Amino acid sequence: MKESLGAKTLIYPAPVLVVGTYDRTGKPNVMTASWGGICCSQPPCVAVSLRQATYTYGNILERKAFTISIPSEQHVKEVDYFGLFSGRDVDKFAASKFTAVRSTLVDAPYVQEFALVVECKLAQVIALGLHTQFVGEVVDVRRSRQSLRRAVWWILRK
Amino acid sequence: MKESLGAKTLIYPAPVLVVGTYDRTGKPNVMTASWGGICCSQPPCVAVSLRQATYTYGNILERKAFTISIPSEQHVKEVDYFGLFSGRDVDKFAASKFTAVRSTLVDAPYVQEFALVVECKLAQVIALGLHTQFVGEVVDVRRSRQSLRRAVWWILRK
Repeated sequence: MKESLGAKTLIYPAPVLVVGTYDRTGKPNVMTASWGGICCSQPPCVAVSLRQATYTYGNILERKAFTISIPSEQHVKEVDYFGLFSGRDVDKFAASKFTAVRSTLVDAPYVQEFALVVECKLAQVIALGLHTQFVGEVVDVRRSRQSLRRAVWWILRK
Repeated sequence: MKESLGAKTLIYPAPVLVVGTYDRTGKPNVMTASWGGICCSQPPCVAVSLRQATYTYGNILERKAFTISIPSEQHVKEVDYFGLFSGRDVDKFAASKFTAVRSTLVDAPYVQEFALVVECKLAQVIALGLHTQFVGEVVDVRRSRQSLRRAVWWILRK
């Protein structure tokens, strides 16, 4: 017998996705989102759901591109901040002292300090309700050489 | 400096979603998928990406409904099996000895033994490429009373 909890958004775990975009003036912005992930193998695509109220929403429509940086546990404080404030009001890169790097493939920045970065060009915009889903085609995935060194060290240690 | 890994499907972590459906004869089926999750707050929606080759793909189109059961660590063996074999060839409920329960709200079964179940009616079918994304509106979420007892015990113990 199962107890009803009502029509709620209760699936776990969810990833921590840091979405990187440029606004129309060229200011880089990041926001933390957790409703998204890989959604297609060929072409490789990721989806991320955003409310229209977010600054990132307009940026993606304007630039037709975004990146998704995957943070580490050590960045939890900054990543929480990225999800609490709007790029409309603050410069999150300046505040966090993280480095915005311009992607060479898409019109969006990524976070230098994060180990894994997925670079996407906008493929589809799907209206769902309060959230809109942005589907991006993955153009490249990049990882820090540092993370590679750590992985090799981890394997050798075993 | 970051090293290019190519256009790959490399976001982590991903959830473990056990998708429950009926086929046209009424046989309950489950498959394990990991490309999906919550995608909208109002109406509450989940998305799951499936290849056309899966048995579940046809079942969802036929029945316009599916459930997502969230397994626990103790079910890892059965959940792996659910992702390796097709319901076209085997009866996964019979083989795993799990219990298929008919949802009272949507035309789909769920796994009695799993602690959390999300019941969905099909809302959108989105062609992405090799994968198709099924968006389901969440009609109800159910949890085992056992999991509630465990949660209460956990809180009281603290």
